[in-house]
Amino acid sequence: MTVADDPRTRAEALDAADPLARYRDEFVVAHDWHIYLDGNSLGRLPGRTISVLRDAVEQEWGAGLVQSWDRWVELPAATGDLIAPLIGARPGEVIVCDQTSVNLYKLAAAAVAATGRTTIVTDDTNFPSDRYVMDGVARAAGGTLRVAQVDQVDGPQPADIAALLDDDVALVALSHVGYRSAAIADMAAITALAHRHGAMALWDLSHSAGAVPVELEASGADLAVGCTYKHLNGGPGAPAFLYVRSSHQENLSQPIHGWFGHDDMFAFEPSYRPAPGIAHFAVGTPPVVSLHAVAPGVAIVAEAGIQAIRAKANLLTSLLVELFDEFLAPVGFGLGSPREAERRGGHVTLLHPEAFRLSWLARVNGVIVDFRVPDAIRLGVAPLYTRFVEVADAAFKLAVFAKHGLWRGLPAERPTVT
Amino acid sequence: MTVADDPRTRAEALDAADPLARYRDEFVVAHDWHIYLDGNSLGRLPGRTISVLRDAVEQEWGAGLVQSWDRWVELPAATGDLIAPLIGARPGEVIVCDQTSVNLYKLAAAAVAATGRTTIVTDDTNFPSDRYVMDGVARAAGGTLRVAQVDQVDGPQPADIAALLDDDVALVALSHVGYRSAAIADMAAITALAHRHGAMALWDLSHSAGAVPVELEASGADLAVGCTYKHLNGGPGAPAFLYVRSSHQENLSQPIHGWFGHDDMFAFEPSYRPAPGIAHFAVGTPPVVSLHAVAPGVAIVAEAGIQAIRAKANLLTSLLVELFDEFLAPVGFGLGSPREAERRGGHVTLLHPEAFRLSWLARVNGVIVDFRVPDAIRLGVAPLYTRFVEVADAAFKLAVFAKHGLWRGLPAERPTVT
Repeated sequence: MTVADDPRTRAEALDAADPLARYRDEFVVAHDWHIYLDGNSLGRLPGRTISVLRDAVEQEWGAGLVQSWDRWVELPAATGDLIAPLIGARPGEVIVCDQTSVNLYKLAAAAVAATGRTTIVTDDTNFPSDRYVMDGVARAAGGTLRVAQVDQVDGPQPADIAALLDDDVALVALSHVGYRSAAIADMAAITALAHRHGAMALWDLSHSAGAVPVELEASGADLAVGCTYKHLNGGPGAPAFLYVRSSHQENLSQPIHGWFGHDDMFAFEPSYRPAPGIAHFAVGTPPVVSLHAVAPGVAIVAEAGIQAIRAKANLLTSLLVELFDEFLAPVGFGLGSPREAERRGGHVTLLHPEAFRLSWLARVNGVIVDFRVPDAIRLGVAPLYTRFVEVADAAFKLAVFAKHGLWRGLPAERPTVT
Repeated sequence: MTVADDPRTRAEALDAADPLARYRDEFVVAHDWHIYLDGNSLGRLPGRTISVLRDAVEQEWGAGLVQSWDRWVELPAATGDLIAPLIGARPGEVIVCDQTSVNLYKLAAAAVAATGRTTIVTDDTNFPSDRYVMDGVARAAGGTLRVAQVDQVDGPQPADIAALLDDDVALVALSHVGYRSAAIADMAAITALAHRHGAMALWDLSHSAGAVPVELEASGADLAVGCTYKHLNGGPGAPAFLYVRSSHQENLSQPIHGWFGHDDMFAFEPSYRPAPGIAHFAVGTPPVVSLHAVAPGVAIVAEAGIQAIRAKANLLTSLLVELFDEFLAPVGFGLGSPREAERRGGHVTLLHPEAFRLSWLARVNGVIVDFRVPDAIRLGVAPLYTRFVEVADAAFKLAVFAKHGLWRGLPAERPTVT
């Protein structure tokens, strides 16, 4: 190996040529020696969010008080319109409200009601909370949740879903990018399959929005949900978004009828009269402070451009896969993500029997990764602030920890792992 | 009238003798010349909340990043336990999650499922969003919402509800303090009536929590919901709370099955297995920043003491009723709240055919009140920061505006009134 081939040198060269490098300055980096590879769980704090929140709290709440509602009532739809172009949606098709699981409940129940069918199809790589929600919706309607057993690395393929489809199916609901493997599902092909059987297609974009280009309209998707606190950097538990294709909006009815979904909320009419458009998919008073934190994170993604973000993510995860082949596979790691860059999203998953203790060891050494039962370590790359050298150094450290069995020094459990 | 009888002088004396006067310093008062009588809609910003939120954003999110979840996962139950003593509940019976309307949906649906009945009873003074939610729940189960027609000032009386009860009724769900009249319903008597017919009783405490003593356990109440942004000063749209009596917790199942309600959320089990206790009434990732703002507001209420708050509220609203008799009734106002202090909560409602323009006129003159269709002006007193002289001055101004018809100078509509 020549010096030029040395992976650390290559990583430095990639950083030097990175057109997104300057975006790191948009984020608070409190501990520069930490390597934060968990932006796919919680995105970093954008610097501009600090002043937005200070203004929201001290000026809008503190000084403006109730009169600030004139502005706040617009936030759910306005913030949705900021997200729309990042996911291939049109203005008026996205609203920010409630949490992802609640939004999924609303839309899944709406699809069951609209189709008059009671079966929902998903797959066993979908996020557990999604499966819980949809199982509950299907059972409540007297139906069932059909769960495709799919390859844990490659994620759901059209044939996996096709095998479960029939005319009882109300809804096919999958994650676009798998929370574990980062495998990207074929949104257009699977949506078309669902439509062929008269079912609707709902996509969870929690690991997609801000990480990979999403084409909701072009793919024919009917419904979508997603969180704002991962690649959109909206803050811990920030309210989620939901998408309803405009042609469906007047034909779908969600089951939680609150005043923020009413056509004239301050008229205080005795009966619920759903607002036209996307608004009747909202329910109650939004958590304004958390909601305010969403727009600045989305704005940075829009400024950098989702195509540029995607291009850098491919380079980052490809470097990780190369380092996996060279350093990690030889010391007992498996690859839990697709090998082809275009088939994976914004993280790479490593598999190891001691993944729990290795992830913990990495964290106490300043390499913040996360663990997923039973054997997965996720290395999230957030192109807006992750450097190539960070990815290289994290891989080297994990290789050393595994090679020398340093995890043996740690007990088998720790209080909480998130 | 002697000088000592002059209401302004009396108000000054009441302020001088007020044991809660110093609590005003706990709150941001950006415009001291504003008279803010809308704390029953949005409570003021506690000064200590500014530093709590700064720490939550800059330290916990910015520096701690994903590792702060070790603390954040505890917040919903811990914040619930702070609220519990204010509403007569025990530790482990209250959790802070989602918005009031979503919590109401969960608990109403749980009651319908548990009783196997499909009728819900409420009254026509209950908050419109509550009625929309419960009508939706009842209809989805094939039942109906029965709405008692009650006196708009006195609110629902036991006899009003008794007339609608039979063995089809799953749930009686009312507001404890009416959003419009501030009338206090007889929680113990109405709950007992519900139980006599095998129905459950759910109370909306949005206008009660932090304003009047609530005795959920002693009254026999089964379920409750409430918001945290009015008299608890938790900030705009701050997440709501819900209460489930401990003896019911294992027997009730709410319909939105998310990972924050799972017994072992990070085990990522394929099926939903509800957590024991109050936790399975939560759903998804909470909006951490907004959630963080709840505890400081609750703490101030606890420090001042709910009995002391109630005593001052009675003096404040009694002063308003006296001023109504002397100055407001003669110029065309009606009283939209109960005349007896012990029968009303933390606000007094004035009725006037020109309520809309009068409330607007008051606002632009720095007297922040709110309007409720078609003819109501609510004057909210928040004993932690409302002065007796503010109440007196507001009444004088409204009297002058009405006497001279100053509202005629304003157009009949303005963009948004909240």
